[in-house]
Amino acid sequence: MNSQKQFIEIFKDSFNDFYDALEKNLFQIVDIDIISKQQITEDLIEIIRGDVTALIKGDPAARRNRRTNDYSIDDEGQDKIETDDIKYVLNSYRSLNSVIMYRVAHLIYNYCDSLKSTDLDQENKDEVKLFLQAQARKLSDSTKSYTGVEIHPNAKVGKRFVIDHGYGTLIGETCEIGNDCYILQGVTLGAKGIMKNDTGRRHPKLGNKVEIAGFARVFGPISIGDETKIYGFAVIDRDIPPKREVSIVNQLQLVLPKSNPVSIYGLFPKYDGIEIIGRNLDFCSNIQLLNSEGIHVDSCPVTTYIKGDSIFLRINNIESIIEDPKIKNYILSIELKEGNVLLENSAGWIDYIKLNIEKNEK
Amino acid sequence: MNSQKQFIEIFKDSFNDFYDALEKNLFQIVDIDIISKQQITEDLIEIIRGDVTALIKGDPAARRNRRTNDYSIDDEGQDKIETDDIKYVLNSYRSLNSVIMYRVAHLIYNYCDSLKSTDLDQENKDEVKLFLQAQARKLSDSTKSYTGVEIHPNAKVGKRFVIDHGYGTLIGETCEIGNDCYILQGVTLGAKGIMKNDTGRRHPKLGNKVEIAGFARVFGPISIGDETKIYGFAVIDRDIPPKREVSIVNQLQLVLPKSNPVSIYGLFPKYDGIEIIGRNLDFCSNIQLLNSEGIHVDSCPVTTYIKGDSIFLRINNIESIIEDPKIKNYILSIELKEGNVLLENSAGWIDYIKLNIEKNEK
Amino acid sequence: MNSQKQFIEIFKDSFNDFYDALEKNLFQIVDIDIISKQQITEDLIEIIRGDVTALIKGDPAARRNRRTNDYSIDDEGQDKIETDDIKYVLNSYRSLNSVIMYRVAHLIYNYCDSLKSTDLDQENKDEVKLFLQAQARKLSDSTKSYTGVEIHPNAKVGKRFVIDHGYGTLIGETCEIGNDCYILQGVTLGAKGIMKNDTGRRHPKLGNKVEIAGFARVFGPISIGDETKIYGFAVIDRDIPPKREVSIVNQLQLVLPKSNPVSIYGLFPKYDGIEIIGRNLDFCSNIQLLNSEGIHVDSCPVTTYIKGDSIFLRINNIESIIEDPKIKNYILSIELKEGNVLLENSAGWIDYIKLNIEKNEK
Repeated sequence: MNSQKQFIEIFKDSFNDFYDALEKNLFQIVDIDIISKQQITEDLIEIIRGDVTALIKGDPAARRNRRTNDYSIDDEGQDKIETDDIKYVLNSYRSLNSVIMYRVAHLIYNYCDSLKSTDLDQENKDEVKLFLQAQARKLSDSTKSYTGVEIHPNAKVGKRFVIDHGYGTLIGETCEIGNDCYILQGVTLGAKGIMKNDTGRRHPKLGNKVEIAGFARVFGPISIGDETKIYGFAVIDRDIPPKREVSIVNQLQLVLPKSNPVSIYGLFPKYDGIEIIGRNLDFCSNIQLLNSEGIHVDSCPVTTYIKGDSIFLRINNIESIIEDPKIKNYILSIELKEGNVLLENSAGWIDYIKLNIEKNEK
Repeated sequence: MNSQKQFIEIFKDSFNDFYDALEKNLFQIVDIDIISKQQITEDLIEIIRGDVTALIKGDPAARRNRRTNDYSIDDEGQDKIETDDIKYVLNSYRSLNSVIMYRVAHLIYNYCDSLKSTDLDQENKDEVKLFLQAQARKLSDSTKSYTGVEIHPNAKVGKRFVIDHGYGTLIGETCEIGNDCYILQGVTLGAKGIMKNDTGRRHPKLGNKVEIAGFARVFGPISIGDETKIYGFAVIDRDIPPKREVSIVNQLQLVLPKSNPVSIYGLFPKYDGIEIIGRNLDFCSNIQLLNSEGIHVDSCPVTTYIKGDSIFLRINNIESIIEDPKIKNYILSIELKEGNVLLENSAGWIDYIKLNIEKNEK
Repeated sequence: MNSQKQFIEIFKDSFNDFYDALEKNLFQIVDIDIISKQQITEDLIEIIRGDVTALIKGDPAARRNRRTNDYSIDDEGQDKIETDDIKYVLNSYRSLNSVIMYRVAHLIYNYCDSLKSTDLDQENKDEVKLFLQAQARKLSDSTKSYTGVEIHPNAKVGKRFVIDHGYGTLIGETCEIGNDCYILQGVTLGAKGIMKNDTGRRHPKLGNKVEIAGFARVFGPISIGDETKIYGFAVIDRDIPPKREVSIVNQLQLVLPKSNPVSIYGLFPKYDGIEIIGRNLDFCSNIQLLNSEGIHVDSCPVTTYIKGDSIFLRINNIESIIEDPKIKNYILSIELKEGNVLLENSAGWIDYIKLNIEKNEK
């Protein structure tokens, strides 16, 4: 089940905040007759139904209450959503609350613009408009307080919008977001500068089905194309075409045993070697190039320059490695004078650099 | 308008939390006469007036209520601030609340130190001091709860302090912050280690007019000079002189079409070429150097080494490019054997690397 | 003092939320007799005692109330913890609250599994189980709201667990965390994808004594070994062995004076030079290699290629530097045609690159 009528029943039972917000912030201020009130409310709930369904379909943890694994298509070609799951997410997903309350705040913020010119005379309209905008911002601010998500009520957000986890996610005033977008925690859709930004459009526009992972930042009045996926910590300040994946590709990480005499500050791959920057590197010695089976590659002697802060490893005759089809990977073995294991291998998502600094058994 | 008296009136109307906090945490505990209470309160509000004004001037979204664009100088040489804007930000900016409540908590935390020795005998003073410190910390903790900002009440913060957005921003116990600083969300002004830090001064000192962007981290007992600007995600653990801008300069990002046979893990620019690290790179072929108009640069043949995980592209005769004034940029074109578009161009804020891997039409 | 009994007394005085949560979410729903209720409560408080003690020992700011510096060992070989400090952290540490309320939520979430088969018939058990799980998730969600920490109640967390600061920290549903772990703010222990993740185990497993610094992200069903330390912003998506330290090693940052004609986008160290990418770099001239005393290194002439967007600095005869024991570091001096100071030195945690671009006095 998930018909509009049934959804509205569940929603009415579960979500008093929504009605309170409409009542206190809009209906008490603007003179609207009963039928119109009901229409506004139901239209809004219908949009929210899309948000709720999108969350349940997108996040496996949101489907914990299901008794069957049946999330296939129902008779009307719709995904089957369980009533229990709807209740569950309405009650337990602050990030969903942030979207629902944004829907309310956005309506309030822009309500005056939807009025016919006859509804209010211009002077009153300006007055009411400013008042409603302040009410909407206040609502948005108190929503931020209990959801951790800050969505400016003037931002434009498409249908079936999901914010998952959401703490620290920030959607600026002049953002435009398409349909079916999915955004995680710590995401900034912001302006370019730190303070004293321009007052015009200064925030990004997202197409449909855009996904943005944790702590990515998208800055300035740029556009992100449909179905593009932005990975964690990426920083975007220019247009991205549709159907792209954006990720950081040169973050190197080091996995270092604790308590060794050496510190490693940097590690830079070169096509003919590798550069290691650190302290006490003169503890290292007997550096060799091994292949992936750990066997010394005679054809490629390594010239090592160790000096204070740096090791420069020049791998000579690198072409012979590159052209040798048997060598699929190389391991750089660095032995420590003192016999300690210094550094076992690199990490991150880059497989390429493998350093073994092993105990010198000779 | 924005005289002290008028501000106090608006503030009194808008901000009951402030009075509650003073009443419950300080005035009920320490025996202060009426006039002194009033003086303490008004001095505090005057400091807060500076914070409020700084926010309204720094953030365009905070000036939404204005009816004129007039934010110039008034008769007394002060920036004109609208009453409506003051009400607006007092009601709708959790990040401003975090600063206001920090002002209260800081006063409470250090109140005993400002007492004359005759005011309380030493034993009582120690007792009251510990009690007030605990109250201040409690107040600060509950402020964190609804603003997302954690400022230790013992931190020292200068005048006209703005925290914008603020979720996840953390200001450690022994921080010292100058006047007119502006800090965004997710910023850590913290200690260097993870656990078991020293008990002495372990947090940074900021000069005047320092700006810090989202998720930057400043660690340890270091100093940041006046008017220095720290950009997003930067990690600072040493002194920075005044009037500097600190930013990450080597973050490379890749914009990759979805669904292609190739994965790209890393991409490293060299002065004589570029290194690409990935999987299934042998799908790539016919790699050429093009200029910014897409025309093949005959003078610079590219030698390509493709092997398992890596492509090494050596751009020969690179000096001829560098010295050719007609070539302003270069494009590296890599065609795929299978005809799929692999990777269109690089992103991030670095314009320099432009890769076009295009369908082989031959 | 810190005996179990005394701790329970303090806890009972300080932490009503805990009792409310048990009462409303578990004891009202499941029929448990008085003695069993008391046992459940006391067992839970005993686990929490471990969490509280671990926080007080791990964070110096948590010990502000102490009157002595005596945190040594007591007669029973236990660390001495002050009663005042216990009260202090119970009242003032939202991040501790997040752990305490997770303990409650976890108990509620899994309560049915601990029942003997005779306690409830199967059909009722399934019913109660789903209900309790929803209650637990709701409790966890409201805890997220006032602590900023999201711990799924189904996650498994070992003893003496500390979350410090904690805003934005996220611990996914299928995480397993060992004993004595210490986690800071903004940490994600999450699933690999953005949306539509698998429904099986999809979150990390942490060994004992793992420390994770701010904004690090650990993804997918991987394992982190005992006593491993993960530094800020690191991204882990593969197993890490025990006793390792993982950190980003190639993040370069630039400290640039404000207001100069030149922009620097990238800066890449090479073993035989350095590459600088930017705009208006033709303002730079007379680039020289200096030693750490600022004296020109005659033996290493620098060949400079400046062209539009880039400077390529090839440091010739680099071996002579590397092999010269007197040269401990080098400074690259770049003078500006216009006489402005462009860029003073690099920052970040990498000492290695030192650029001085100085006023040309000639």
